[in-house]
Amino acid sequence: MTVKHVFIRDVAPRDGFQIEPNLVPTDLKVHVINALGAAGVPGIEATSFVHPKAVPQMADAEEVMKQIRRYPSTRYSVLVPNLRGAQRALATGPDQLNLVVSASESHNRANLNRGTFETLAEHKAVAELSLKAGIPVQGGIATSFGCPFEGRIPIERVLTVVERYVEIGVTGIGLADTTGMANPIQVRRLVSAVKDRWPDLDVHLHFHNTRGMGLANVYAGFLEGVTHFDASLGGIGGCPFAPGATGNICTEDTVHMFSEMGLETGIDLDGLIQLSRRMEKALGHKLPGQVMKAGKTMDLHPLPPGISR
Amino acid sequence: MTVKHVFIRDVAPRDGFQIEPNLVPTDLKVHVINALGAAGVPGIEATSFVHPKAVPQMADAEEVMKQIRRYPSTRYSVLVPNLRGAQRALATGPDQLNLVVSASESHNRANLNRGTFETLAEHKAVAELSLKAGIPVQGGIATSFGCPFEGRIPIERVLTVVERYVEIGVTGIGLADTTGMANPIQVRRLVSAVKDRWPDLDVHLHFHNTRGMGLANVYAGFLEGVTHFDASLGGIGGCPFAPGATGNICTEDTVHMFSEMGLETGIDLDGLIQLSRRMEKALGHKLPGQVMKAGKTMDLHPLPPGISR
Repeated sequence: MTVKHVFIRDVAPRDGFQIEPNLVPTDLKVHVINALGAAGVPGIEATSFVHPKAVPQMADAEEVMKQIRRYPSTRYSVLVPNLRGAQRALATGPDQLNLVVSASESHNRANLNRGTFETLAEHKAVAELSLKAGIPVQGGIATSFGCPFEGRIPIERVLTVVERYVEIGVTGIGLADTTGMANPIQVRRLVSAVKDRWPDLDVHLHFHNTRGMGLANVYAGFLEGVTHFDASLGGIGGCPFAPGATGNICTEDTVHMFSEMGLETGIDLDGLIQLSRRMEKALGHKLPGQVMKAGKTMDLHPLPPGISR
Repeated sequence: MTVKHVFIRDVAPRDGFQIEPNLVPTDLKVHVINALGAAGVPGIEATSFVHPKAVPQMADAEEVMKQIRRYPSTRYSVLVPNLRGAQRALATGPDQLNLVVSASESHNRANLNRGTFETLAEHKAVAELSLKAGIPVQGGIATSFGCPFEGRIPIERVLTVVERYVEIGVTGIGLADTTGMANPIQVRRLVSAVKDRWPDLDVHLHFHNTRGMGLANVYAGFLEGVTHFDASLGGIGGCPFAPGATGNICTEDTVHMFSEMGLETGIDLDGLIQLSRRMEKALGHKLPGQVMKAGKTMDLHPLPPGISR
């Protein structure tokens, strides 16, 4: 394998904070986003332009975009659910819009109150608007690896959604395991099916660690040549269907794994770990990240008294 | 790949309980071991015949072996650190003795108060005794993927220990990532080095999830053809160097992953999950297992009111 560099996008400010039980102050969001940029994280999903009534936690989207410091080497993307959200988002100068539709009809109805292909029709209008403004668009596909209501999603169904996204001019697609249902063999199967059909399409993977397979799925995707992964600082985030379960895969754990495997991420891992520990204190509850607790593999320990090598 | 079956050995009764802060009652140990057997777990490391002063938690080793119900399809192995332990163990009728030595000199000194090759010399006497009694012996190698004092361990060093074990007649070896320092690429490298040299030797992998890579390492080992893995019910266990970090990989999470990937384990996963939840209550603190919190991937949820497929 000749891959030497992987790109991590931190989604804590959006996928993580949106599920926090208490309102996260704008100041803390700005602090986290700025520190992620300072640590060299190459992608940040900074906020979501969802309707504030639907997700009150994201009501400060404009304020966040206004207050953050923009590092030139970081791409600041924002989630937009619909045309109204895209209009609001584009006014704030993001580097990219992230769309999301669920591969499963029922999950899309539960999430966006309409069918998968109705949402994709609106996404066509969003893409036109955004591309006209010179802002690229990524097509995210929720429940790509399974739906909490319907179970397994046929690969053909996911490919149909990818096809629609490609038609409307997205620069890349994101395959999202929204509720942590993916396994490594399935990841390889879906990714290779997409890459067989669209060899030049950027494929981005978004995993949750709900059932402990998060980093195994990252490794499986990596083996299929994927180099773009979403992750969340400290592993914040969660799953409304599994209270107490962990959420998104943890950014610093993911960076640590790639670093141990000899890959470059361009990220200051120590800075990330410190930030994660600060965020844990600020949020006031334990985070699921492991490296923030155990330290890095190469943080060695002194020999016990009386023991020599 | 033609592999269809993987073998999970549960080490909770030994590696898990030995680090519990409160003394685990013999009754609970017996209940857990019996329920693991009833769930069809093909291997159980039932206890350790370490000196009771060194690990008071294991002082009831004889009692545990006497009280448990032995399921014919389960192999009950026990850990023995030395000749005295082997003598005690053999009197209780185990199916297998598990030896352990650290690849790193300093870890072995910290753990067993002597050098790696001194321990291996004593293991030779243990193997002779055990094989004469008709009981097979497995050679475990702690810190195979890294030592908390010395860092990386050269592959050649691990191979030298494997060689010594092969010479003394072990039926298989166990490569153990004692403090969770392994990564998937390293796993593949070490496993393939061992298999290149000893193609017919049974290789067993023992991972900890200390830095979140546990199941990724399992998948990496599986890709190299390994089909025997240690895991611990509920993910109990831990690492003395990383308070708050998770310990062994979780049995039901491992079984769940393989089951999702289409592999057979012969284990009643629902039974395991229920047992894990009971054990969490009995131990009185949260366990790191994920599937016990989130449920299985295919435990689907009802559609929200008003939503149709």
